[in-house]
This record gives sequence, C-alpha cells and structure tokens, in this order.
Amino acid sequence: MPASPIRKLVPYAEKAKKEGKKVYHLNIGQPDIETPELMLQAVKNFPYKIIEYTHSAGIESYRKKLAEYYKKNQIELDYTQIMVTTGGSEAIEIAMMTCFNEGDEIIIPEPFYANYNGFGVAAGIVVKPVTSDIKTGFALPPISKFEEIITPKTKGIMICNPNNPTGYLYSKEEIEQLGALVKKHNLFLLVDEVYREFCYDGKEHFSVMRLKGVEENVIMLDSVSKRYSACGLRIGALITRNQEVLDTALKFAQARLSPPTIGQVASEAAVNVPKEYFDKVEAEYTNRRNTVVGLLNKIEGVFCPMPSGAFYCFASLPVDDADKFCQWLLEEFEHEKQTVMLAPASGFYSNSILGKQEVRIAYVLNEGDLKKAMVCLDKALQVYPGRVVKKEKAAKA
Amino acid sequence: MPASPIRKLVPYAEKAKKEGKKVYHLNIGQPDIETPELMLQAVKNFPYKIIEYTHSAGIESYRKKLAEYYKKNQIELDYTQIMVTTGGSEAIEIAMMTCFNEGDEIIIPEPFYANYNGFGVAAGIVVKPVTSDIKTGFALPPISKFEEIITPKTKGIMICNPNNPTGYLYSKEEIEQLGALVKKHNLFLLVDEVYREFCYDGKEHFSVMRLKGVEENVIMLDSVSKRYSACGLRIGALITRNQEVLDTALKFAQARLSPPTIGQVASEAAVNVPKEYFDKVEAEYTNRRNTVVGLLNKIEGVFCPMPSGAFYCFASLPVDDADKFCQWLLEEFEHEKQTVMLAPASGFYSNSILGKQEVRIAYVLNEGDLKKAMVCLDKALQVYPGRVVKKEKAAKA
Repeated sequence: MPASPIRKLVPYAEKAKKEGKKVYHLNIGQPDIETPELMLQAVKNFPYKIIEYTHSAGIESYRKKLAEYYKKNQIELDYTQIMVTTGGSEAIEIAMMTCFNEGDEIIIPEPFYANYNGFGVAAGIVVKPVTSDIKTGFALPPISKFEEIITPKTKGIMICNPNNPTGYLYSKEEIEQLGALVKKHNLFLLVDEVYREFCYDGKEHFSVMRLKGVEENVIMLDSVSKRYSACGLRIGALITRNQEVLDTALKFAQARLSPPTIGQVASEAAVNVPKEYFDKVEAEYTNRRNTVVGLLNKIEGVFCPMPSGAFYCFASLPVDDADKFCQWLLEEFEHEKQTVMLAPASGFYSNSILGKQEVRIAYVLNEGDLKKAMVCLDKALQVYPGRVVKKEKAAKA
Repeated sequence: MPASPIRKLVPYAEKAKKEGKKVYHLNIGQPDIETPELMLQAVKNFPYKIIEYTHSAGIESYRKKLAEYYKKNQIELDYTQIMVTTGGSEAIEIAMMTCFNEGDEIIIPEPFYANYNGFGVAAGIVVKPVTSDIKTGFALPPISKFEEIITPKTKGIMICNPNNPTGYLYSKEEIEQLGALVKKHNLFLLVDEVYREFCYDGKEHFSVMRLKGVEENVIMLDSVSKRYSACGLRIGALITRNQEVLDTALKFAQARLSPPTIGQVASEAAVNVPKEYFDKVEAEYTNRRNTVVGLLNKIEGVFCPMPSGAFYCFASLPVDDADKFCQWLLEEFEHEKQTVMLAPASGFYSNSILGKQEVRIAYVLNEGDLKKAMVCLDKALQVYPGRVVKKEKAAKA
C-alpha cells in the first residue's frame, strides 16, 4: 500500500507547529462537534463488571434499535439484516472480501475516498474509475461511461452518498440509474452512506436500501462516526437483504470475534438522540459550507462547486501541483503566524494527474477559524511561486 | 471461510437452553473473572466531550505506558515499536498481510487457534501444520519436523505461547530453537503472547522479544482481552523491532483509521493494575485447572495432559467422533437437567481427522460449576452410544 498524499504531509504539519505556526486543519474528517451527551452518559454508565465479547454480528438489542433508526429514515429492515462492524472501515473491508474474489473488478466514480483503493488492494480487487467532473459538481457520470468499462470480470459498483471527498449528494434518479445498471449486469452495488445525516438546502437523502427489485444486489455500509461525531467508538454496520452475503460476512466477523462492546452500548443510546441534535448540526454545517464555498469562489482562479452533503468541498486552485502547494503551505508559508492544511486531490484519483490542481477541504472548524483559514489560503495563492492560471478558470474569472 | 465446528454447535446450545437445560460453557475463551476496577473507572471517567479518532498506531501516552508494562516483563522496547491494534485479532491479521504475500507458506504447530487459519485464508497464505502430540503435552515438535516441510515459499513460523488451544507453555529452550531456525532460514517468527500472564506452577514465560540476534525476524502479537478479562474492549498490539514491518503495518492501520479510543484509555489505566490482581487470578486458575484436569483423568478412557499456561486443557475422549459427541451432549443428553458444551478439536487441526477424539476445555467457570460440568461429562461418556476405547487409552487404564 502506498502512503497517501495526505499522510505524507503530516510530518510537515508537525514541523510547522513546532516552529510556532497555527495550522488550520481542513485536511481531515474529524468533526469538532461534540458527541451527544446521551452517548457520553451511556459510556459513563456502562453497567457490567466484565467487558465481554458480544455476538460477532453485534449486540441483539443494539441491532434492533438500529432497525428502528433506519425505519425513521424510510428503510425497512429486519435486525438480522444488520451486521455491526468495527467502524465503517471494517464494513467496507468485509463487504469487499465477501462480495469479490481476487482479480474481480469494481467500478467507483472518482475522485473517491482514498481508503476504498486501500481495501481493494488488500482484497486483491481491481478498482476501475469512472471520472466525475468538477464542472457538474461531481454528479454521477453518464451510465454509458460505466457500461463502456464493464467487462466479464466486473462484479460491482461502489459509491459514497453523500460523497466523501466531493460533498456531492446523489439524487434519487441517479441511485435508480445505478440500480437498473447493477440489475442489468448482475453486479453488487455497495453504497457507503455514513454521511446520510449531512444533507443541506432541504434536499433529502435517498438510501440505496429503498430501491426495489435489487434486494440481492445492494449492500449498504454505515457508521456512527460522522453521524454522532463519535469516530473513536469504531462502530459501523454492514447492511443487506442478501442472505448469502450476510452468511459469508458473518464468517469474516467471527474471525475477529466481536465489535467493541462499549462502543455498541453508546451507539445503542445514540438511537434516542433527538431530531433537534441533527437540526442544530445541519444548521452549523450549512453555515460553514456557505462561508467556505463563498470565500473560496471569491479568490481569483479558484473554483469550488456548492456541495449538498457531507462536510467536504472540492476546489480547483491556480497551482502547478496541489501536492507541492499543500506542502509549501506548511513548510514555507505563513500569514500572521498561521497557515492551513488541505488534502491534495491526487490521492482521490486512480490517475493522480487528474487531481493535480484540486484539493479537498473539510469544513470541520468553527466559522471564525474557517474565515481565518480562507484568508491564509488567499494570501498564500497570491505569493505561491508555482501559481498558474488554467485556461478554463481564466475564462470563469 | 468454512464455519468452525464450535460455531456449528451454537444453535444446539440455544435449543438446549430453550428446553430448560443448564449448559456449562467450557467451549469459549470468555473468562468470568471481573475486569479490574481501575479499567472500569477509566471508562466511567472518560474525560472528553468528543470521542475522536486517535493516531492510527494508538495514543502516544498509552504506547509509552505499554512500554513500561513490557519492561516489567523483561522486554525492552521503544514505544514506537508498539502499534496498537483493534484486538489481538487485528494484530494477527495485519501481521499476516504485512509479512506475507499471496501463496507464501507459514508453518504452525497444530492443534492451533482456528482463526489463524481464517486470517491466513483471507490473506491468501498457505498454512502448513507440524503436528504436536498429546502424549508430550503438545510440546514443540522436533525442529527437524519443521525443516522437513520448509520450502522456498516458506516465509514464517507462528506459535501461540502459552498455547490456545492446548495450554502448553513453551520453554525458553524451545523459543531459542525457533529463533535459531528462523535465523537460519531467514523467516519471520510470529508469536501470539496474549496469555502471557497465565503461567502456573511457578513457571516463567519467556517472551520471543527477549531473543537476541533475531530482532528483524520477530513479531509479537498481544492483547488486553485475556490479560485483564476485557475482551470487549478490542485492544491489542503488534510489536516488532523491524522498522520495515512497522512502516508497512502502519499503512494497513491507517486504512482502518484508528483503534477504539475508549478501549485505549481503559487499557492505559490497566498498566497500573497491581501484581496482586495477577496473583489472585493465577491462584484461581491454578485451582480450576487442577480440579478439571484431575477430574478428567479420573474418567475412564479420558486422558488430559497437565497444561502450564492459558486457561485451556486438551483432552482425548473415548468417543467415535468428538464433533458428534459434542452435538449429542447438547441435543440428546442431560444429567439432572444439565449438560456441558465443549469445543471439538477437529477445528484446531488442518486435517480434521486428527482431532476426532479430542476436545478443548476452557476452565472459565467457577470451581463449583466446573465440578458439576465434569460430573455431566462422566455420566455422558458412560451412556454415549458412540463410545469407543482407543488402544493406547486402554493401555493407560
């Protein structure tokens, strides 16, 4: 596995901090929102004297509560169709090992979450990208683009909705198009919905589990990490109505014995988190998004489509090489003893050249810090020695 | 992955309970000893408002405390040589993916922990067994037996010390023999030491990390699950002085982001658990072991060597097929409305026929229950329709 372009920057960020610079971390998906008090209380009230293994598929009462949560989200499930995992990461890993064999191909629209490729490599799967376009805000590429690269080895399609890294929220129609495609070619459709609760502008999330007629094809991957700002609990879920997939996935789950017990207890409590919590979080992120995307598009040569979900936006910058630029921000630049850490886009594309002038920005800081970070970015782009203006961006300006 | 013979019995155990039978569970490694109060308090006092990811290799302060724990056990380590994992299971999984490529061979003395094979299969590794013998108490087979099956594809040797499933404690001399062997053939030596604290009769555990001259070859796998009766925390560790292995292992760790945060906080507190805790646990298990092994050897046709470590013993029974017998115990048998659940040994051997007359017994219940369970087993063997007497056992009797 190659080190990701984001990870490579970590030593530079540490050095910058040692030199006394304040670094605004817009590079990671660790939200600063507080974990709901209900969950922290459940941890404090952990009632047992022995911290035991749970069932490999998770605590039954938690799975039943999860089914209630999904029901509130128009997803009808039996609790036995929910397998609790150690974070969304393990849900992805187990789904890939369960659905695919060595050498199978999976199609993923790019830019995509870098670890999809990591888990794919570990499972011996070939990830084939379909490139989505910043000009359309990273909407689903035309289905014909998928069909062009489907081969007899193609066994699945995977998306993240709302999307990490682009923040794009796939529409009901796009999900239905994918449903028809996997039905036609008899493929698995894996959908990572960990950002379900982060949809803006009144837009509704359409879960893949609501598709009819593709029950055997669909696998949903989920996590409490982002939903409740509880990344450290390491509690996710693999969800499907395909019994064969559930049976095989359980065998992988049994090999690692059990998901974390205390995390499950806290996550069970989380199902009672009131709607007001999500309303407040949504209002906060909407504000941040508007601030960041607004400020980005005011910077000369920068273009950032307005995302409708998650807490990321994806911008093109007037730079020669975003990897170099992001490193330079940490190593060479400062504005009033401050700088900003961004995620260069190269790691989100199969062909890193495609992301050469793009970055992902996670708006996981408070509005004041976000504004200061955007000032830094603006100042930095004015003096960056590798500044270039792309023709299309120039046209926009 | 095939379902393990133990897992196959679970529905029969559930049925037996529904029918009102009391089932003594000697089939699993879930200890009944209470988790140290210090750890439960650390959970209750979790000090943060956000349950965040930690560093992928674990919280730095925890890794430093762990280095102190190892130092008390005569193992000198820098904290950077410790990578925290999600349970011992993940330590095994990441070690296998890091050290071996598809098609590589690893030699493991059998009977072995069934999930070693599971993780091996998932990593595309070929597990080659060297059979150890109940007559020697499952001591290390002669080194010549390893050498006979070493091929150019052999890349590692793995043991569990003290051993699950046999309870055998490898001696310093045996560990040194393995050290010399891996040095000679340039192999990795993976040692699972999760039962380190469970050694009896005053015998000392000799950690593989104490071997000199094989620093690049040795990887130690560890977990707090058994040590502190805290299986549900899912906190383990991968430990090595081989920097290349650490670097690659970290990339796998980064893909899954972080081990559970609260589990790490509790495990950091555990390093302060006083020696008295282990003394008490050791006394308790010594007692249980003596009770179970003593009673087993009094049953006609049963042979059980006295183990020196872990909390398992491995017995041969006068039955036609231990898988059938264990199922029959749950399905057909009862003594005063009670029965016993054992782990048939077939799942611990590469060639299941080798375990046909053997079972693993985990002495994880209190002494009173263990005695009642042994009465059940004695009565059951008297009436089991498939009873047979092996010649060697007859000779013993």
